[in-house]
Amino acid sequence: MIYSEYINKETKGWTDILDITEDVKRIVSRSGIQNGLVTIAVSSSTSAIATLEFESGLVADFKKALEQVAPVKGKYAHEAKWHDGNGFAHIRSALVGTSKTIPLHAANLLSGAWQQIILVDFDNRPRSRKVFVQVFGEK
Amino acid sequence: MIYSEYINKETKGWTDILDITEDVKRIVSRSGIQNGLVTIAVSSSTSAIATLEFESGLVADFKKALEQVAPVKGKYAHEAKWHDGNGFAHIRSALVGTSKTIPLHAANLLSGAWQQIILVDFDNRPRSRKVFVQVFGEK
Amino acid sequence: MIYSEYINKETKGWTDILDITEDVKRIVSRSGIQNGLVTIAVSSSTSAIATLEFESGLVADFKKALEQVAPVKGKYAHEAKWHDGNGFAHIRSALVGTSKTIPLHAANLLSGAWQQIILVDFDNRPRSRKVFVQVFGEK
Repeated sequence: MIYSEYINKETKGWTDILDITEDVKRIVSRSGIQNGLVTIAVSSSTSAIATLEFESGLVADFKKALEQVAPVKGKYAHEAKWHDGNGFAHIRSALVGTSKTIPLHAANLLSGAWQQIILVDFDNRPRSRKVFVQVFGEK
Repeated sequence: MIYSEYINKETKGWTDILDITEDVKRIVSRSGIQNGLVTIAVSSSTSAIATLEFESGLVADFKKALEQVAPVKGKYAHEAKWHDGNGFAHIRSALVGTSKTIPLHAANLLSGAWQQIILVDFDNRPRSRKVFVQVFGEK
Repeated sequence: MIYSEYINKETKGWTDILDITEDVKRIVSRSGIQNGLVTIAVSSSTSAIATLEFESGLVADFKKALEQVAPVKGKYAHEAKWHDGNGFAHIRSALVGTSKTIPLHAANLLSGAWQQIILVDFDNRPRSRKVFVQVFGEK
Protein backbone atom coordinates (compact mmCIF):
# COMPACT_ATOMS: atom_id res chain seq x y z
CA MET A 1 0.00 0.00 0.00
CA ILE A 2 1.18 3.50 -0.84
CA TYR A 3 -0.33 6.70 0.52
CA SER A 4 0.99 10.21 -0.01
CA GLU A 5 0.21 13.84 0.79
CA TYR A 6 1.90 17.20 0.57
CA ILE A 7 2.62 19.46 3.54
CA ASN A 8 2.55 23.16 2.64
CA LYS A 9 4.76 25.55 4.59
CA GLU A 10 5.58 29.22 4.35
CA THR A 11 9.23 29.80 5.24
CA LYS A 12 11.31 32.90 5.94
CA GLY A 13 14.43 31.58 4.17
CA TRP A 14 17.96 32.22 5.54
CA THR A 15 18.23 28.73 7.07
CA ASP A 16 14.73 28.89 8.52
CA ILE A 17 14.17 25.63 10.44
CA LEU A 18 10.62 24.27 10.88
CA ASP A 19 9.53 21.27 12.94
CA ILE A 20 7.26 19.18 10.67
CA THR A 21 7.09 16.07 12.88
CA GLU A 22 3.41 16.46 13.78
CA ASP A 23 2.44 17.07 10.14
CA VAL A 24 4.25 13.86 9.14
CA LYS A 25 2.64 11.87 11.97
CA ARG A 26 -0.85 13.04 10.97
CA ILE A 27 -0.26 11.81 7.41
CA VAL A 28 1.03 8.47 8.70
CA SER A 29 -2.07 8.17 10.85
CA ARG A 30 -4.42 8.98 7.94
CA SER A 31 -2.64 6.38 5.78
CA GLY A 32 -3.68 3.57 8.12
CA ILE A 33 -0.36 1.87 7.33
CA GLN A 34 1.27 0.06 10.28
CA ASN A 35 4.67 -1.12 9.03
CA GLY A 36 6.89 0.17 6.25
CA LEU A 37 8.79 3.27 5.22
CA VAL A 38 7.96 6.96 5.46
CA THR A 39 9.84 9.16 3.00
CA ILE A 40 9.86 12.93 3.40
CA ALA A 41 11.20 14.88 0.40
CA VAL A 42 11.46 18.40 -1.00
CA SER A 43 11.97 18.96 -4.70
CA SER A 44 13.70 22.30 -4.10
CA SER A 45 17.49 22.59 -4.50
CA THR A 46 17.84 25.26 -1.79
CA SER A 47 16.17 23.46 1.11
CA ALA A 48 16.64 20.19 3.00
CA ILE A 49 15.05 17.58 5.26
CA ALA A 50 16.93 16.44 8.37
CA THR A 51 16.40 15.30 11.95
CA LEU A 52 17.35 17.42 14.97
CA GLU A 53 16.25 17.88 18.55
CA PHE A 54 14.06 20.91 17.96
CA GLU A 55 14.98 23.37 20.70
CA SER A 56 16.04 26.97 20.14
CA GLY A 57 19.66 26.37 21.19
CA LEU A 58 20.29 23.60 18.67
CA VAL A 59 18.36 25.44 15.97
CA ALA A 60 20.87 28.30 16.36
CA ASP A 61 23.82 25.88 16.57
CA PHE A 62 22.80 24.05 13.38
CA LYS A 63 22.60 27.37 11.49
CA LYS A 64 26.04 28.30 12.79
CA ALA A 65 27.59 24.98 11.76
CA LEU A 66 26.22 25.38 8.23
CA GLU A 67 27.49 28.95 8.10
CA GLN A 68 30.99 27.57 8.65
CA VAL A 69 30.66 24.90 5.94
CA ALA A 70 29.07 27.19 3.30
CA PRO A 71 29.13 30.85 4.43
CA VAL A 72 26.44 33.25 3.22
CA LYS A 73 29.15 35.75 2.25
CA GLY A 74 31.51 33.17 0.70
CA LYS A 75 32.59 33.35 -2.94
CA TYR A 76 30.47 31.16 -5.22
CA ALA A 77 30.94 30.46 -8.93
CA HIS A 78 27.14 30.09 -9.04
CA GLU A 79 26.89 33.77 -8.12
CA ALA A 80 29.33 34.90 -10.83
CA LYS A 81 27.07 33.21 -13.38
CA TRP A 82 23.51 33.57 -12.11
CA HIS A 83 23.56 36.56 -9.72
CA ASP A 84 20.77 35.22 -7.53
CA GLY A 85 22.79 35.42 -4.34
CA ASN A 86 21.97 31.93 -3.08
CA GLY A 87 25.03 29.79 -3.93
CA PHE A 88 25.45 28.96 -0.24
CA ALA A 89 21.84 27.69 -0.13
CA HIS A 90 22.42 25.18 -2.95
CA ILE A 91 25.62 23.86 -1.36
CA ARG A 92 24.00 23.47 2.08
CA SER A 93 21.07 21.62 0.49
CA ALA A 94 23.39 19.19 -1.34
CA LEU A 95 25.32 18.50 1.87
CA VAL A 96 22.37 18.02 4.24
CA GLY A 97 20.17 16.23 1.69
CA THR A 98 16.68 16.76 0.32
CA SER A 99 14.98 13.62 1.63
CA LYS A 100 14.81 11.29 4.64
CA THR A 101 13.46 7.76 4.84
CA ILE A 102 12.31 6.69 8.31
CA PRO A 103 11.01 3.23 9.26
CA LEU A 104 7.45 2.80 10.50
CA HIS A 105 6.95 -0.01 13.02
CA ALA A 106 3.60 -0.93 14.60
CA ALA A 107 2.22 2.48 13.51
CA ASN A 108 5.09 4.31 15.21
CA LEU A 109 7.67 6.40 13.38
CA LEU A 110 11.16 5.23 14.37
CA SER A 111 12.27 8.74 15.27
CA GLY A 112 12.94 9.35 18.93
CA ALA A 113 11.38 11.65 21.49
CA TRP A 114 14.25 14.11 21.02
CA GLN A 115 14.60 13.67 17.30
CA GLN A 116 12.29 15.91 15.29
CA ILE A 117 11.88 15.94 11.50
CA ILE A 118 12.83 19.37 10.19
CA LEU A 119 12.35 21.28 6.97
CA VAL A 120 15.28 23.68 6.48
CA ASP A 121 14.94 26.51 3.99
CA PHE A 122 18.37 27.89 3.08
CA ASP A 123 17.19 30.27 0.35
CA ASN A 124 17.78 34.02 0.60
CA ARG A 125 14.11 35.02 0.68
CA PRO A 126 10.74 33.76 1.98
CA ARG A 127 9.36 30.82 0.01
CA SER A 128 6.26 28.63 -0.17
CA ARG A 129 7.48 25.06 0.19
CA LYS A 130 5.75 21.78 -0.57
CA VAL A 131 7.02 18.75 1.32
CA PHE A 132 6.05 15.36 -0.13
CA VAL A 133 5.32 12.63 2.41
CA GLN A 134 4.96 9.06 1.17
CA VAL A 135 3.93 6.16 3.41
CA PHE A 136 4.72 2.77 1.82
CA GLY A 137 3.96 -0.49 3.61
CA GLU A 138 1.30 -2.80 4.97
CA LYS A 139 -1.81 -2.33 7.14
CA MET B 1 7.01 -8.67 3.27
CA ILE B 2 8.42 -6.71 6.19
CA TYR B 3 10.79 -8.10 8.80
CA SER B 4 12.52 -6.13 11.55
CA GLU B 5 14.82 -6.57 14.52
CA TYR B 6 16.82 -4.42 16.88
CA ILE B 7 20.60 -4.59 17.29
CA ASN B 8 21.74 -3.71 20.81
CA LYS B 9 25.15 -2.10 21.24
CA GLU B 10 27.08 -0.68 24.18
CA THR B 11 29.07 2.37 23.06
CA LYS B 12 31.78 4.46 24.67
CA GLY B 13 30.48 7.76 23.29
CA TRP B 14 32.87 10.51 22.08
CA THR B 15 32.39 9.61 18.38
CA ASP B 16 32.73 5.90 19.06
CA ILE B 17 32.46 4.12 15.69
CA LEU B 18 31.19 0.51 15.54
CA ASP B 19 31.02 -1.76 12.52
CA ILE B 20 27.49 -3.25 12.48
CA THR B 21 27.65 -4.78 8.97
CA GLU B 22 27.61 -8.40 10.14
CA ASP B 23 24.71 -7.73 12.53
CA VAL B 24 22.71 -6.22 9.65
CA LYS B 25 23.57 -9.11 7.31
CA ARG B 26 22.42 -11.67 9.89
CA ILE B 27 19.05 -9.93 10.16
CA VAL B 28 18.73 -9.81 6.36
CA SER B 29 19.49 -13.51 6.24
CA ARG B 30 16.93 -14.36 8.94
CA SER B 31 14.29 -12.31 7.08
CA GLY B 32 14.49 -14.61 4.06
CA ILE B 33 13.84 -11.57 1.86
CA GLN B 34 15.76 -11.55 -1.46
CA ASN B 35 15.03 -8.16 -3.04
CA GLY B 36 14.00 -4.86 -1.51
CA LEU B 37 15.27 -2.24 0.88
CA VAL B 38 17.14 -2.49 4.16
CA THR B 39 16.76 0.52 6.44
CA ILE B 40 19.03 0.99 9.44
CA ALA B 41 17.96 3.70 11.90
CA VAL B 42 18.70 5.05 15.36
CA SER B 43 16.09 7.06 17.25
CA SER B 44 18.77 8.90 19.21
CA SER B 45 19.60 12.54 18.36
CA THR B 46 23.28 12.21 19.34
CA SER B 47 24.28 9.27 17.17
CA ALA B 48 24.27 8.43 13.44
CA ILE B 49 24.32 5.69 10.82
CA ALA B 50 26.78 5.97 7.91
CA THR B 51 28.97 3.90 5.59
CA LEU B 52 32.77 3.90 5.79
CA GLU B 53 35.64 1.56 5.03
CA PHE B 54 36.13 0.29 8.57
CA GLU B 55 39.88 0.43 9.17
CA SER B 56 41.55 2.19 12.09
CA GLY B 57 43.08 4.95 9.93
CA LEU B 58 39.76 6.08 8.46
CA VAL B 59 37.99 5.69 11.79
CA ALA B 60 40.46 8.26 13.20
CA ASP B 61 40.15 10.46 10.10
CA PHE B 62 36.35 10.50 10.25
CA LYS B 63 36.46 11.60 13.91
CA LYS B 64 38.92 14.34 13.01
CA ALA B 65 36.78 15.63 10.12
CA LEU B 66 33.73 15.85 12.43
CA GLU B 67 35.81 17.62 15.06
CA GLN B 68 36.47 20.34 12.49
CA VAL B 69 32.81 20.69 11.51
CA ALA B 70 31.42 20.67 15.09
CA PRO B 71 34.24 20.85 17.67
CA VAL B 72 33.76 19.29 21.12
CA LYS B 73 34.99 22.51 22.72
CA GLY B 74 33.04 24.84 20.41
CA LYS B 75 30.43 27.27 21.74
CA TYR B 76 26.88 25.93 21.57
CA ALA B 77 23.62 27.72 22.39
CA HIS B 78 22.33 24.26 23.40
CA GLU B 79 24.92 24.25 26.19
CA ALA B 80 23.93 27.68 27.47
CA LYS B 81 20.39 26.39 27.88
CA TRP B 82 20.68 22.73 28.85
CA HIS B 83 24.18 22.31 30.33
CA ASP B 84 24.52 18.71 29.21
CA GLY B 85 27.78 19.30 27.35
CA ASN B 86 26.79 17.52 24.14
CA GLY B 87 25.80 20.27 21.69
CA PHE B 88 28.49 19.06 19.28
CA ALA B 89 26.96 15.56 19.37
CA HIS B 90 23.52 16.80 18.26
CA ILE B 91 24.98 18.86 15.40
CA ARG B 92 27.14 15.97 14.15
CA SER B 93 24.12 13.66 14.25
CA ALA B 94 21.99 16.09 12.21
CA LEU B 95 24.77 16.47 9.62
CA VAL B 96 25.66 12.79 9.20
CA GLY B 97 22.08 11.51 9.49
CA THR B 98 20.31 8.99 11.68
CA SER B 99 19.32 6.42 9.06
CA LYS B 100 20.53 4.72 5.88
CA THR B 101 18.52 2.85 3.26
CA ILE B 102 20.48 0.28 1.27
CA PRO B 103 19.13 -1.82 -1.62
CA LEU B 104 18.96 -5.60 -1.32
CA HIS B 105 19.45 -7.51 -4.58
CA ALA B 106 19.37 -11.33 -4.91
CA ALA B 107 19.87 -11.59 -1.11
CA ASN B 108 22.97 -9.35 -1.25
CA LEU B 109 23.22 -5.98 0.42
CA LEU B 110 24.36 -3.39 -2.13
CA SER B 111 27.20 -2.20 0.05
CA GLY B 112 30.67 -2.96 -1.21
CA ALA B 113 33.52 -5.01 0.18
CA TRP B 114 35.18 -1.82 1.48
CA GLN B 115 32.01 -0.11 2.57
CA GLN B 116 30.90 -1.04 6.08
CA ILE B 117 27.74 0.09 7.85
CA ILE B 118 28.68 2.01 10.97
CA LEU B 119 26.92 3.16 14.11
CA VAL B 120 28.52 6.37 15.36
CA ASP B 121 27.87 7.51 18.91
CA PHE B 122 28.75 11.19 19.32
CA ASP B 123 27.44 11.57 22.88
CA ASN B 124 29.74 12.62 25.73
CA ARG B 125 29.34 9.41 27.77
CA PRO B 126 28.85 5.66 27.27
CA ARG B 127 25.38 4.70 26.09
CA SER B 128 23.27 1.63 25.36
CA ARG B 129 22.04 2.01 21.79
CA LYS B 130 19.27 0.23 19.93
CA VAL B 131 19.59 0.16 16.15
CA PHE B 132 16.41 -0.68 14.25
CA VAL B 133 16.89 -2.77 11.10
CA GLN B 134 13.95 -3.19 8.75
CA VAL B 135 13.99 -5.46 5.69
CA PHE B 136 11.18 -4.66 3.27
CA GLY B 137 10.75 -6.59 0.02
CA GLU B 138 9.95 -9.91 -1.63
CA LYS B 139 11.17 -13.47 -1.11
CA MET C 1 7.08 -4.98 -7.75
CA ILE C 2 10.82 -4.53 -7.80
CA TYR C 3 12.86 -3.64 -10.87
CA SER C 4 16.56 -2.85 -10.95
CA GLU C 5 19.37 -2.00 -13.36
CA TYR C 6 22.93 -0.79 -13.21
CA ILE C 7 24.17 2.45 -14.79
CA ASN C 8 27.82 2.22 -15.92
CA LYS C 9 29.90 5.40 -15.89
CA GLU C 10 33.53 6.21 -16.57
CA THR C 11 34.72 8.93 -14.21
CA LYS C 12 37.85 11.08 -14.02
CA GLY C 13 38.08 10.97 -10.21
CA TRP C 14 39.12 14.06 -8.18
CA THR C 15 35.52 14.94 -7.22
CA ASP C 16 34.26 14.38 -10.75
CA ILE C 17 30.52 15.18 -10.74
CA LEU C 18 28.21 13.52 -13.30
CA ASP C 19 24.52 14.20 -13.86
CA ILE C 20 22.78 10.79 -13.92
CA THR C 21 19.18 12.08 -13.77
CA GLU C 22 18.25 11.00 -17.30
CA ASP C 23 19.77 7.53 -16.78
CA VAL C 24 17.68 7.11 -13.63
CA LYS C 25 14.51 8.34 -15.35
CA ARG C 26 14.97 5.88 -18.22
CA ILE C 27 15.20 3.00 -15.74
CA VAL C 28 12.10 4.22 -13.92
CA SER C 29 10.27 4.38 -17.25
CA ARG C 30 11.36 0.85 -18.23
CA SER C 31 10.20 -0.47 -14.84
CA GLY C 32 6.61 0.53 -15.58
CA ILE C 33 6.21 1.31 -11.87
CA GLN C 34 4.03 4.34 -11.08
CA ASN C 35 4.29 4.86 -7.31
CA GLY C 36 6.96 3.85 -4.83
CA LEU C 37 10.61 4.47 -4.07
CA VAL C 38 13.64 4.83 -6.30
CA THR C 39 16.95 4.07 -4.61
CA ILE C 40 20.23 5.01 -6.25
CA ALA C 41 23.36 3.49 -4.65
CA VAL C 42 27.08 3.00 -5.23
CA SER C 43 28.96 0.22 -3.48
CA SER C 44 32.22 2.18 -3.65
CA SER C 45 33.64 3.83 -0.50
CA THR C 46 35.23 6.72 -2.42
CA SER C 47 32.20 8.02 -4.30
CA ALA C 48 28.74 9.33 -3.44
CA ILE C 49 25.20 9.99 -4.64
CA ALA C 50 23.64 13.41 -3.99
CA THR C 51 21.27 15.97 -5.47
CA LEU C 52 22.43 19.34 -6.82
CA GLU C 53 21.37 21.86 -9.42
CA PHE C 54 23.73 20.70 -12.15
CA GLU C 55 25.27 23.90 -13.54
CA SER C 56 29.01 24.52 -13.86
CA GLY C 57 29.09 27.19 -11.13
CA LEU C 58 27.57 24.96 -8.44
CA VAL C 59 29.62 21.97 -9.59
CA ALA C 60 32.75 24.04 -8.85
CA ASP C 61 31.28 25.36 -5.58
CA PHE C 62 30.41 21.86 -4.34
CA LYS C 63 33.99 20.69 -5.00
CA LYS C 64 35.32 23.72 -3.13
CA ALA C 65 33.07 23.10 -0.10
CA LEU C 66 34.24 19.48 0.12
CA GLU C 67 37.85 20.61 -0.21
CA GLN C 68 37.33 22.64 2.98
CA VAL C 69 35.75 19.76 4.89
CA ALA C 70 38.29 17.09 3.82
CA PRO C 71 41.23 18.67 1.93
CA VAL C 72 43.09 16.62 -0.69
CA LYS C 73 46.40 17.61 0.94
CA GLY C 74 45.20 17.11 4.53
CA LYS C 75 46.85 14.63 6.88
CA TYR C 76 45.08 11.27 7.00
CA ALA C 77 45.79 8.27 9.23
CA HIS C 78 44.49 6.17 6.33
CA GLU C 79 47.45 7.39 4.27
CA ALA C 80 50.03 6.53 6.96
CA LYS C 81 48.74 2.96 6.87
CA TRP C 82 47.71 2.26 3.28
CA HIS C 83 49.64 4.78 1.13
CA ASP C 84 46.95 4.96 -1.54
CA GLY C 85 46.62 8.73 -1.33
CA ASN C 86 42.81 8.83 -1.14
CA GLY C 87 41.97 9.34 2.55
CA PHE C 88 40.10 12.54 1.67
CA ALA C 89 37.96 10.56 -0.81
CA HIS C 90 36.77 8.09 1.84
CA ILE C 91 35.89 10.87 4.29
CA ARG C 92 33.97 12.86 1.68
CA SER C 93 32.05 9.72 0.69
CA ALA C 94 31.08 8.98 4.32
CA LEU C 95 29.91 12.57 4.81
CA VAL C 96 27.88 12.97 1.60
CA GLY C 97 26.51 9.41 1.57
CA THR C 98 26.54 6.55 -0.90
CA SER C 99 22.80 6.27 -1.60
CA LYS C 100 19.66 8.35 -2.09
CA THR C 101 16.02 7.27 -1.87
CA ILE C 102 13.60 9.43 -3.86
CA PRO C 103 9.82 9.02 -3.95
CA LEU C 104 8.07 8.15 -7.22
CA HIS C 105 4.56 9.56 -7.59
CA ALA C 106 2.31 9.01 -10.63
CA ALA C 107 5.38 7.93 -12.63
CA ASN C 108 7.24 11.13 -11.73
CA LEU C 109 10.42 11.25 -9.68
CA LEU C 110 9.97 13.71 -6.79
CA SER C 111 13.13 15.60 -7.68
CA GLY C 112 12.62 19.11 -8.94
CA ALA C 113 13.47 20.83 -12.20
CA TRP C 114 16.60 22.32 -10.61
CA GLN C 115 17.53 19.29 -8.57
CA GLN C 116 19.61 16.75 -10.49
CA ILE C 117 20.80 13.37 -9.23
CA ILE C 118 24.59 13.29 -9.26
CA LEU C 119 27.26 10.64 -9.04
CA VAL C 120 30.36 12.11 -7.39
CA ASP C 121 33.67 10.29 -7.72
CA PHE C 122 36.14 11.50 -5.09
CA ASP C 123 38.89 8.98 -5.83
CA ASN C 124 42.37 10.10 -6.92
CA ARG C 125 42.26 8.43 -10.35
CA PRO C 126 39.79 7.59 -13.15
CA ARG C 127 37.41 4.75 -12.28
CA SER C 128 34.69 2.65 -13.88
CA ARG C 129 31.65 3.00 -11.60
CA LYS C 130 28.47 0.96 -11.42
CA VAL C 131 25.43 2.73 -9.98
CA PHE C 132 22.60 0.47 -8.81
CA VAL C 133 19.09 1.80 -9.41
CA GLN C 134 16.18 0.01 -7.76
CA VAL C 135 12.52 0.89 -8.39
CA PHE C 136 10.21 -0.57 -5.74
CA GLY C 137 6.46 0.01 -5.84
CA GLU C 138 3.19 -0.58 -7.68
CA LYS C 139 2.11 -0.27 -11.32
